[in-house]
Amino acid sequence: MIRLADLAATQQLSFKGDGDLLIESVATLENAKSNQISFLANPAYKKYLSNTDAGVVILTEELAKEFQGNALISHNPYVTFAYIAQHFAAQHKPEPKIHATAVIAESAQVAENVSIGAYSVIGPNTQIKPGTVIENHVSIGADVTIGADCFIKSGVKIESGCELGDRVILHPGAVIGADGFGLARDKHKWVKIPQTGVVILGDDSEVGANTTIDCGAIENTIIGNDVKLDNQIQIGHNVVIGDHTVIAGCTAVAGSAKIGANCLIGGGVGIVGHIEICDGVTVQAMALVTHSINEPGSYSSVPPLQPTKQWRKNAVRTRQLDQMARKINQLEKKLND
Amino acid sequence: MIRLADLAATQQLSFKGDGDLLIESVATLENAKSNQISFLANPAYKKYLSNTDAGVVILTEELAKEFQGNALISHNPYVTFAYIAQHFAAQHKPEPKIHATAVIAESAQVAENVSIGAYSVIGPNTQIKPGTVIENHVSIGADVTIGADCFIKSGVKIESGCELGDRVILHPGAVIGADGFGLARDKHKWVKIPQTGVVILGDDSEVGANTTIDCGAIENTIIGNDVKLDNQIQIGHNVVIGDHTVIAGCTAVAGSAKIGANCLIGGGVGIVGHIEICDGVTVQAMALVTHSINEPGSYSSVPPLQPTKQWRKNAVRTRQLDQMARKINQLEKKLND
Amino acid sequence: MIRLADLAATQQLSFKGDGDLLIESVATLENAKSNQISFLANPAYKKYLSNTDAGVVILTEELAKEFQGNALISHNPYVTFAYIAQHFAAQHKPEPKIHATAVIAESAQVAENVSIGAYSVIGPNTQIKPGTVIENHVSIGADVTIGADCFIKSGVKIESGCELGDRVILHPGAVIGADGFGLARDKHKWVKIPQTGVVILGDDSEVGANTTIDCGAIENTIIGNDVKLDNQIQIGHNVVIGDHTVIAGCTAVAGSAKIGANCLIGGGVGIVGHIEICDGVTVQAMALVTHSINEPGSYSSVPPLQPTKQWRKNAVRTRQLDQMARKINQLEKKLND
Repeated sequence: MIRLADLAATQQLSFKGDGDLLIESVATLENAKSNQISFLANPAYKKYLSNTDAGVVILTEELAKEFQGNALISHNPYVTFAYIAQHFAAQHKPEPKIHATAVIAESAQVAENVSIGAYSVIGPNTQIKPGTVIENHVSIGADVTIGADCFIKSGVKIESGCELGDRVILHPGAVIGADGFGLARDKHKWVKIPQTGVVILGDDSEVGANTTIDCGAIENTIIGNDVKLDNQIQIGHNVVIGDHTVIAGCTAVAGSAKIGANCLIGGGVGIVGHIEICDGVTVQAMALVTHSINEPGSYSSVPPLQPTKQWRKNAVRTRQLDQMARKINQLEKKLND
Repeated sequence: MIRLADLAATQQLSFKGDGDLLIESVATLENAKSNQISFLANPAYKKYLSNTDAGVVILTEELAKEFQGNALISHNPYVTFAYIAQHFAAQHKPEPKIHATAVIAESAQVAENVSIGAYSVIGPNTQIKPGTVIENHVSIGADVTIGADCFIKSGVKIESGCELGDRVILHPGAVIGADGFGLARDKHKWVKIPQTGVVILGDDSEVGANTTIDCGAIENTIIGNDVKLDNQIQIGHNVVIGDHTVIAGCTAVAGSAKIGANCLIGGGVGIVGHIEICDGVTVQAMALVTHSINEPGSYSSVPPLQPTKQWRKNAVRTRQLDQMARKINQLEKKLND
Repeated sequence: MIRLADLAATQQLSFKGDGDLLIESVATLENAKSNQISFLANPAYKKYLSNTDAGVVILTEELAKEFQGNALISHNPYVTFAYIAQHFAAQHKPEPKIHATAVIAESAQVAENVSIGAYSVIGPNTQIKPGTVIENHVSIGADVTIGADCFIKSGVKIESGCELGDRVILHPGAVIGADGFGLARDKHKWVKIPQTGVVILGDDSEVGANTTIDCGAIENTIIGNDVKLDNQIQIGHNVVIGDHTVIAGCTAVAGSAKIGANCLIGGGVGIVGHIEICDGVTVQAMALVTHSINEPGSYSSVPPLQPTKQWRKNAVRTRQLDQMARKINQLEKKLND
């Protein structure tokens, strides 16, 4: 519970209204009560503003002028909301405790205030720095380095040799450092190329549930600082991702692709191997990137949705596009003659 | 083993042929033997009907007339087959047993006839109702409610606070309630928005292997009754899915999307965030839904497959479509003048 | 450490340069040192050849002529590199050891030199042949057969009845034999069709991290010999995949599809159910295969990437394609009259 005036002070922001109002938690505009703080960031939800029961709403200065209730004024209501939600999020971090069933190699170096959950397994020479929490059923190989204040959730697997920075979060079922998909075709069979690199995850990186990041074939797969990967993403061997890049769920990045810093890659995107994407590129959902991108900006490739009946008529024409274009040119020539 | 006449009676259906025939199990038309029952639902398999060795075939009345052998007559042979296959499926449900290695919090409430497999972990205040089976290596957090007669398969993770109805099936590796992908951009870094909602799974819902359903950001992610999710699906935070909707594998649903009841969503589909799909919508495989859909019906967006050589010529024209359309209009105008 | 001349002899290849040079490991052209061997297979990396510090480079005869340094001469430098990397890859296979915490059913038959990691669970009547390594947290059901020299990595789940050939590799989090997605629609609800088949994995097959292969509905799902599946792939029930076929990450194959031998299926591809793809087919990344393919060759369907601004103008026209094509034909007719 915190007074509005005090909460505003923690964020170095001004407010409008009753500074003594006590706030207990965050809520959406639609469902907030008088002891809760809400926010308006997505214009689609503006319709809920006039009728909200929220005690306070985080708003831009412009919107705060229109609004009758209490307001916390921010240039960026969404980021202010994020900090305030962090303030309220109870610190549920468990007391540091190593569960009796954890199997920890004798040569592993586990710092003092580390938590390790039931049935987790830590391999030889692995180092875990202070403040890190490892949940249940986590399998960590040999010679792994895990930084300080990391959060490794249940069922995560980290293969031998991988290196995690500080404050890394790995969500349940993520697999870090499985073999890359390296095969050479001999006459009658495939020959497996040993995958001897590792995965390096930068500080503040986050990896979603069931996301997989393969180890490098010879050199390493490198994920920058503050890179955020959603669920069910596949990152191939030797991929390099620059700092602050965000990738939405179910995207696949093929081997040796290089993605720049501050990119926003949508969900379900495909990025082929051995290409480079420069800094500051946005790729829209489900687009396929088949060539390097050298100019920042937004890119798309998916045709729009249509009723299937209409789509059938149009789709058949996509096989005739070249023929159509040639006919247009012929008609134009004929008409000009 | 059951007589055809008795089996027909269990389904309240009529039959044609030898009611005393003993049936032992189900099989495909192509490989059935004389003590097995088969069915014809997909017209593509009609070619196998005349030569089948099946003792009985489940058929529509129309097809039964043409067929020489024994037939069980149904308006919907596929659903009749489903019920009969359930009849034959040996009830392999193990005797209720808590494995000695299961780690169960003292405050957890586990009903009497519940099974819990090896190395599974049940958190504090979690409630598990009668008849539920939990396999090996399952990790269940605190304050979770699991209904009656659920089947939680090996390696499933259920995060704290989630609520499952009755008869819910979670296949291996599914992750229920991992953090949603909520980030706000501050000047130089991403700020994580605490994900404090949970996942609510309705009665009779089923979640495929390695499928992930994120918890809500503030409010909850809600999966209706009798919703069926295939493998490797990603459901973002605050998604709402209506009753009886079915989603095929590898589909991604972004945060805050609302999908109606009785929808059929194909495999590999992408649904962007903050949109609504009304009841009764079919989305074809791999389509991208970028806007709300307000009319029931079938929707598509993927261009048809072509030999790559032909595709190259046509694909380059997709970048010239607007130019082509304008030229057509100019030619038309010129010709009309 | 091995002399170049001796290494060449192990591969029955000729070499150029100093046969006494001692080689210790493999490296990329860009970063190799004088005691390392590298290779040039992808023309994109030819720029690194002239300046490489590699002690030896594996090259075609043609490139070896141009190259000043030591060379190992091969018709197929990539496959030679694969065999040599295997030579150097330290045999990290652990001493066969059953961890004290492994839960092995009494009726399971585990060959003498098998390794089983911490907290793994092996079901009744399951047979594991010599030389196989099972890591941590692996869950194997009843009546499973696992061949010789397999490598089952951490967190893999294998459902009851599945059969693995020899030298099969399953990467972390893979799920073999979960229920297929079989549902019949009764009036007011979905009826689950019991999935009573199993998964059969051929010799030398490899399954990527978090990939899922469903069991058959009645008959089996069959993966041929030397089939290589990347990460996060979904294989539906009753799929059949021919020998030596390779599938890249995030591809989804729907139920009862048959894929021939020696196919190359790209990443993010969708293959609908109940179709057949003949031998020797290549499907480019993210294409959707909606009909059977009867001719070997390469197939594509995804439109090329465009800047979003340009894409918007063109994309709207994909809904007018049929109209455009009709107009062209009218104009042509008018002009010819």
